Amino acid sequence: MDDDAMRRFPVPDLDDLPEDLRERIEEETERAGFTPNVFAGFAYKPSHWRAFFDYHDALVDDTTLERHEVEMIIVAVSGVNHCYYCNVAHGALLRIYAKDPLLADQLVANYRTADIPEKHKTMLDVAVKLTETPVEVGEDDLQKLRDAGFSEEEVWDIGAVSSFFNLSNRMAMFADMRPNEEFHTLGREPHDD
Amino acid sequence: MDDDAMRRFPVPDLDDLPEDLRERIEEETERAGFTPNVFAGFAYKPSHWRAFFDYHDALVDDTTLERHEVEMIIVAVSGVNHCYYCNVAHGALLRIYAKDPLLADQLVANYRTADIPEKHKTMLDVAVKLTETPVEVGEDDLQKLRDAGFSEEEVWDIGAVSSFFNLSNRMAMFADMRPNEEFHTLGREPHDD
Amino acid sequence: MDDDAMRRFPVPDLDDLPEDLRERIEEETERAGFTPNVFAGFAYKPSHWRAFFDYHDALVDDTTLERHEVEMIIVAVSGVNHCYYCNVAHGALLRIYAKDPLLADQLVANYRTADIPEKHKTMLDVAVKLTETPVEVGEDDLQKLRDAGFSEEEVWDIGAVSSFFNLSNRMAMFADMRPNEEFHTLGREPHDD
Amino acid sequence: MDDDAMRRFPVPDLDDLPEDLRERIEEETERAGFTPNVFAGFAYKPSHWRAFFDYHDALVDDTTLERHEVEMIIVAVSGVNHCYYCNVAHGALLRIYAKDPLLADQLVANYRTADIPEKHKTMLDVAVKLTETPVEVGEDDLQKLRDAGFSEEEVWDIGAVSSFFNLSNRMAMFADMRPNEEFHTLGREPHDD
Amino acid sequence: MDDDAMRRFPVPDLDDLPEDLRERIEEETERAGFTPNVFAGFAYKPSHWRAFFDYHDALVDDTTLERHEVEMIIVAVSGVNHCYYCNVAHGALLRIYAKDPLLADQLVANYRTADIPEKHKTMLDVAVKLTETPVEVGEDDLQKLRDAGFSEEEVWDIGAVSSFFNLSNRMAMFADMRPNEEFHTLGREPHDD
Amino acid sequence: MDDDAMRRFPVPDLDDLPEDLRERIEEETERAGFTPNVFAGFAYKPSHWRAFFDYHDALVDDTTLERHEVEMIIVAVSGVNHCYYCNVAHGALLRIYAKDPLLADQLVANYRTADIPEKHKTMLDVAVKLTETPVEVGEDDLQKLRDAGFSEEEVWDIGAVSSFFNLSNRMAMFADMRPNEEFHTLGREPHDD
Repeated sequence: MDDDAMRRFPVPDLDDLPEDLRERIEEETERAGFTPNVFAGFAYKPSHWRAFFDYHDALVDDTTLERHEVEMIIVAVSGVNHCYYCNVAHGALLRIYAKDPLLADQLVANYRTADIPEKHKTMLDVAVKLTETPVEVGEDDLQKLRDAGFSEEEVWDIGAVSSFFNLSNRMAMFADMRPNEEFHTLGREPHDD
Repeated sequence: MDDDAMRRFPVPDLDDLPEDLRERIEEETERAGFTPNVFAGFAYKPSHWRAFFDYHDALVDDTTLERHEVEMIIVAVSGVNHCYYCNVAHGALLRIYAKDPLLADQLVANYRTADIPEKHKTMLDVAVKLTETPVEVGEDDLQKLRDAGFSEEEVWDIGAVSSFFNLSNRMAMFADMRPNEEFHTLGREPHDD
Repeated sequence: MDDDAMRRFPVPDLDDLPEDLRERIEEETERAGFTPNVFAGFAYKPSHWRAFFDYHDALVDDTTLERHEVEMIIVAVSGVNHCYYCNVAHGALLRIYAKDPLLADQLVANYRTADIPEKHKTMLDVAVKLTETPVEVGEDDLQKLRDAGFSEEEVWDIGAVSSFFNLSNRMAMFADMRPNEEFHTLGREPHDD
Repeated sequence: MDDDAMRRFPVPDLDDLPEDLRERIEEETERAGFTPNVFAGFAYKPSHWRAFFDYHDALVDDTTLERHEVEMIIVAVSGVNHCYYCNVAHGALLRIYAKDPLLADQLVANYRTADIPEKHKTMLDVAVKLTETPVEVGEDDLQKLRDAGFSEEEVWDIGAVSSFFNLSNRMAMFADMRPNEEFHTLGREPHDD
Repeated sequence: MDDDAMRRFPVPDLDDLPEDLRERIEEETERAGFTPNVFAGFAYKPSHWRAFFDYHDALVDDTTLERHEVEMIIVAVSGVNHCYYCNVAHGALLRIYAKDPLLADQLVANYRTADIPEKHKTMLDVAVKLTETPVEVGEDDLQKLRDAGFSEEEVWDIGAVSSFFNLSNRMAMFADMRPNEEFHTLGREPHDD
Repeated sequence: MDDDAMRRFPVPDLDDLPEDLRERIEEETERAGFTPNVFAGFAYKPSHWRAFFDYHDALVDDTTLERHEVEMIIVAVSGVNHCYYCNVAHGALLRIYAKDPLLADQLVANYRTADIPEKHKTMLDVAVKLTETPVEVGEDDLQKLRDAGFSEEEVWDIGAVSSFFNLSNRMAMFADMRPNEEFHTLGREPHDD
C-alpha cells in the first residue's frame, strides 16, 4: 500500500493487517489494478476500517438507486465540502458508472451546471442542502424527492448517502488522504453508446 | 417502539424486525428503561441500522478516550449542527457519563462557555472546526491535539467521532427523529463527588 | 448575589446597590426563590440595569402577545445566537409559561422542529430572519405575520422582542453571564392539562 | 413629524402623543432644526419610545467614553448590519462629534480603512466581532481592550453600545425607518483644527 | 496626482507616465476639477491602467443601459463588497447621473431600501446575487431581467458591469485606494426637476 | 465556433465577427487545435471581447510571475468561486504550464492540499482571501507576500490576477459558458522531468 496514501497518520503494511482486511484489500486491488488509498488509510484502525466499509457497502448494495445516482450524490457533496480525495476518487467512479467523461467535473464545480435530467437536479438540490444547511431541510424537501419519482426508501437512501459522505469527506480531509494518480484519468475517454 | 420516534418515515413494529435488531433493541430497552428513538428510527432499514450501530460501537468501544470525552465531542458537534435529537439524547448521556448536570447545556449553546479543562477546549476547537469548515483543518490543528496530551490514535478518534456525528446529525435531521421525553431530564440531578 | 453570576466583570454586593435596584432584586428573589444572575450581572452598572429592565418590562407588560409567545421568540433567537445564559434562563421561563417541558429544547436546537401551530412557525421565521439576516427582512415578511393573524401592533412587538434579545444575548455573551443552576431544571416536570 | 419617517407602521401625530414624548421631541427638534425620524418612528408605541431613549441616554450620558468614540462604534456596527437609517443619521452625528467629514463614510464601508489610532481600531475590532460572531467573543477580546487603554467600565460600555445598536439597527430595518434628508449632508464641510 | 491616492503601492508622478496615460488623466482632471484617485492608483502599472479603463469605457459607452443604471449597479455591488473607494467615488457619480442626492447612501447600505422602480430592484437583485453567490445564479435570474423589460444585450451588460466591479472593488481594496475628498460631497445638493 | 459554447446567450458565427476578433480566434484555434469556448462566448459583444482579452493579455504578458504561477492563482480562485468553465479550461492550462498532471485537481478542491512550496501557499492564501473576504485583506497580507520573496510589482500582479478572475468567473457563470471537451483531458499524461 502507498506510504503516501494519507499524510497525517502512518499507513500500515498490508502484511500486518488482520486477515479480513487483507483479503478485501487484495480483492479491491485485483479489481482496480491498484489499491485505492482510502483502503490503506482507514487500515490505520481496523475496527474503523470495518465499520466504514460495511456502511459503505450497505449504501451501495441495498438500494434501488442506480450506482451512478449514488456516485452523483457523492461527487456533488464532496465538491461542496471541497474534499480532494473524494472529488477525484469518486469522480473516477462516476465517470465509469455513468459512462460520462464530463459529469464529474461538472458536479465538482457546481451541480447546477450539470447535463442531467430534472429528477437528478432535485436529488442533488436536497443532497447539497443537507450538506450545507441541514437545519433548513424540511418535509417539503422530501416531498420534492417523492414528486420527482423517488420511492420512499430511495428518499431515505438519498439522505443516507449524503450523510455518510459528510462523514467520509471529513475523515479524508482530517487525515489528508491522497487520491491515487490513476483516479485522475480513469473514465475520461469518450463513450460510444 | 414509539410511532413518533421519527416524523418523515414510518417506524416499524418491533415484532417485524430481524432477530439481531430485536435482541439488541430489547437489551437497550432493558438497560435504559425505554427504547431510545434512534434505534426505532434506523430500524426502518435494517442494513443501515446494523451499519450505523456497528460504527457507533467501534467509536465508543475501541478507544482510549473516556466515554464522557466522546460524548462531549458529540454534543458540541450537534449543538453547532442544530440537531434536536442529538442535543437532547447525547446531552443526557453526557450528563450521566460526566456526572455533570450542566455541561450538556453549555456545549449545546457554545462550547467556549463550558467549565472544562484547556485540554478539552482544544479537543472541541478541532471537533467544531472539522464540523463547520473542514476545508480549513490543517496539520497544525492535529498538532494542537498532540500538544494537549492526546495520543496519535486518540487524535484519529477525535476526528472519527466528529465525522460520524456529522453523519448522525444529518440522518436525524433528515428523518426528523424525536428524542424520547426521558432524555430531556435524565442526569439533571446534582452529583455529590 | 452569586459571585459567579458573570465571569468578565465583578459582581457587586447587594448591599452596595442603590435602593431601587435592591428592592426589585429582593422582589425577584422572593418570587423565584433565587436571584436570577442577569439581575446580579447588570447591577455592575446601575444606569444600564435600569434601562435594561425597563425595556424588558415594556416588552412583556405592554403587549397583547401572550407571555409564552414572547418567551418562544426569546428562546428561538437565543438558540440562533448561541447564548448560553438566555437559552437556559428563558428556556425555563418558556417551559413554565407554555406549560410544556419539551418546547425550550426544541427551540434552542431548531425552531423548525418544534411542536407548535403554523402561526407560531411564521412568528419564529420572522424573528430568526431578523436575527440572522436583517438586511433581507422585507414588507412581505411583515405581511406574513399579519396574514397569520397578528395585529399591527403585535407585528411591531414581534420585531421589538427579537431586536431586544439581539442586545440581551450579546451583553450576556460579552460579560459571560452564567445561568443559575435552578434554571436548568425548572419546569421540566410534565403538565397534566 | 414626517409621515415618511418609517414605511411599515403609521407615524403618529405629534399632538396625539403623551406629554413627556412631546416635550422631548420638541426639544430635539429645537436643537437639530428638524425632528430626527427615529423619534417619530418609535412614537408608534410610547412605552417602547421611552425604553429606547432611556437606554440610549444611559449609554451616551453615563460613560467616560468620548461621544465621538460612541458614535464610531455605532457607525461601524450599523455598516456591518447594513442599516440605512443608522448609517446616515449616526454618520452625521459622527462627522459632527469627531469634527471629521470623512470618517463616517470610511466606517460605513469598512472600519479597517479608517484614519484612526490603533486604540480605536481595537475598539472597533471588538464591536464588529460582537456584532457578527458573538459566539466567538472571548476573554482575550476584552483583554485587548484593556491593553489598548480602556478602563474596565469602558470595556463594559463598548460592549453595551455595540449590543444596543444591534437592537437599534434591527428595529430601524424592521420598520423601514428613513433618515431625514438633512442627515445626508450634516457635518460634511471641512474643519480647520 | 495625490500621493495618498492609494496606501499600499507608490503613486507615480504624472510627468513620468506614458503619453497616452498623461493625456487621458489631464482630460479627466480638466473635466472633474481634480484627478480621481483611481487614475493615479492604476498608473502604478500602465499596461493594467490601459486594460482597466478600456474595459470600463466599453461598459459605459457600448450599452443601451442608462448611465445612472450602470452606476446603480456599481454602487450596490460596492456596498455589498464593502469597498470604501467605490462606495464614495461611484456614489458621487450616481448622485450626479441620477440627479438624486439620496440614492447612493441607500444603495451603499441596502439596495432593498432604495426609492427605485421595480425594474431596478430586479436589476439589483441579480447584480447582488452574482456578487455574493454566483454559484446560485441561474437561467431563472436572467429570465427575471428579461421579464422586467431589459433586452437580451442589456441582460449581458448587467452581468458584465456587476462582474467588472467585482474586479474593481478588489483592486481598490487590495491597494487601499482612497477616494478624493471631493467625491464625499459631490451631487449632494437637492435637484429641482 | 461551438453553438454550445455558452447556454444563456447566442453564440455568433465566426464569419460575422469583426476582422480583429476573427484573426485572433483563428490564431488561437490554430494553436490549440480547437476554439476555446471563452473566445466564442465573449464574441457575443465584440467591445467586451476586446476589453476582456486585452486585460487578460496584460496580466499574463507584462509580469515577472511565471505563467504556471498565474494559472495556479486562477485555478485556486475559480475553485473557490465554483466556476465550471474556469476550473476545467484553466485546469488544463495549469497542467501544461506546470508540467504537473495532478496540481489542477488539488487546487480546484482545496489549495491547502496542494503539493507546492510554501511561497506558493502564501500566494494562494492571499488570492483566496481577496476572493472570499476582500474586506479583511490588510497590509499584513501584502507583507506576507513580500516576505515570501515576491517583488512589489509581483504583489500587485497577484492582486490583479485574483481580481480579474473574480470578473471572469462571474461572466462565465452568468452566461453558463461550457468548457470544450478537450480541456478535460489535456495535460493529464505524466511528465518525466
